[in-house]
Amino acid sequence: MQTTLEIATQGRGSYEITPQVSAQVTRSRITSGLVHLFIQHTSASLLVCENADPVVREDLEAFMSRAVPDGDPLFRHTAEGPDDMPAHVRSVLTDCSLCIPVLSGQLGLGTWQGIFVWEHRSTAHRRSIVVTVQELQRCRDA
Amino acid sequence: MQTTLEIATQGRGSYEITPQVSAQVTRSRITSGLVHLFIQHTSASLLVCENADPVVREDLEAFMSRAVPDGDPLFRHTAEGPDDMPAHVRSVLTDCSLCIPVLSGQLGLGTWQGIFVWEHRSTAHRRSIVVTVQELQRCRDA
Amino acid sequence: MQTTLEIATQGRGSYEITPQVSAQVTRSRITSGLVHLFIQHTSASLLVCENADPVVREDLEAFMSRAVPDGDPLFRHTAEGPDDMPAHVRSVLTDCSLCIPVLSGQLGLGTWQGIFVWEHRSTAHRRSIVVTVQELQRCRDA
Repeated sequence: MQTTLEIATQGRGSYEITPQVSAQVTRSRITSGLVHLFIQHTSASLLVCENADPVVREDLEAFMSRAVPDGDPLFRHTAEGPDDMPAHVRSVLTDCSLCIPVLSGQLGLGTWQGIFVWEHRSTAHRRSIVVTVQELQRCRDA
Repeated sequence: MQTTLEIATQGRGSYEITPQVSAQVTRSRITSGLVHLFIQHTSASLLVCENADPVVREDLEAFMSRAVPDGDPLFRHTAEGPDDMPAHVRSVLTDCSLCIPVLSGQLGLGTWQGIFVWEHRSTAHRRSIVVTVQELQRCRDA
Repeated sequence: MQTTLEIATQGRGSYEITPQVSAQVTRSRITSGLVHLFIQHTSASLLVCENADPVVREDLEAFMSRAVPDGDPLFRHTAEGPDDMPAHVRSVLTDCSLCIPVLSGQLGLGTWQGIFVWEHRSTAHRRSIVVTVQELQRCRDA
């Protein structure tokens, strides 16, 4: 089972997609397997992060803004603005692909884990994430 | 085949789990496929690293301690202490999920690669890692 | 379907392997599924990055050279030279494993995404990448 989720971001920041991913798992009706996510962009990424206290993701954003500063004179690829190259670096330091187990028909996340799209550009973008749900063992059951 | 490994850490540092993962591959009796690991926490991660010289992981730890310092005044999420938010950042900069090929019934690691749980909190924790072993081609053989 | 790609690098830098990976997908004749890559080394990594403007990867290299400097006195594992331990750190901060969807028989990359081997050592090396192509649903079709 493969589908593409289209996520509209409002600019830099992280946007939870756990419910959408979970819905794909439910729709697939598989019991055990893996769900794989792939973001088809090089200036946004996929993130598994603490989902209880929103300050965690604010602190994370602050850390990244300091570690990979916008407008850094080191960068020469600046055609799309001061956040262009930092967005590519942030993508490389994080993940374009995630794979999460499906256990007893549910997304096998830990208690405090959520799945997020992390927009690294300052302006709003439309992001495509390919979701692939893979079942274990159906062949042997058949 | 899915199982959960429970690993008891003694606080910050990396703990080799290659033998445990390898045992799951053997137990599954598959010849070729993939083994997938997922850590159900946001303050510990999974690491593939050089496993010959232990100084490599000490240097890695030193690098991370300097790059993401404990008690950094930038962080506001400090409820669980000075290592709380740095543990989340370290998790995001590294991996919560790993996927390794199974070749001829063995874990397809390179000569110098080992698999580790990387505890980012300073105190001892119990960490759960979901291991999923996926076989290729059994259907066609059947 | 599993194969190993052998890539000869000319020292530090990124080398595109999208055509080689794409050829494996074509050869497998699968319609939908996933292609998984694993690099069997701890001083080189796999990278999904913008493939239109080569300056992006030059800037990325400049960023990494500043963030993880060669010859950093922090490091004690220096047996193979000033780029030895930085290569391990760069590997840990990036990816040893990638998984990309196969859609309609093609590699499901976004328009501006390419796949690269990222050599972190200064000298030329031979790098092995295990490619596993997994099909969805063939069992149910059978």
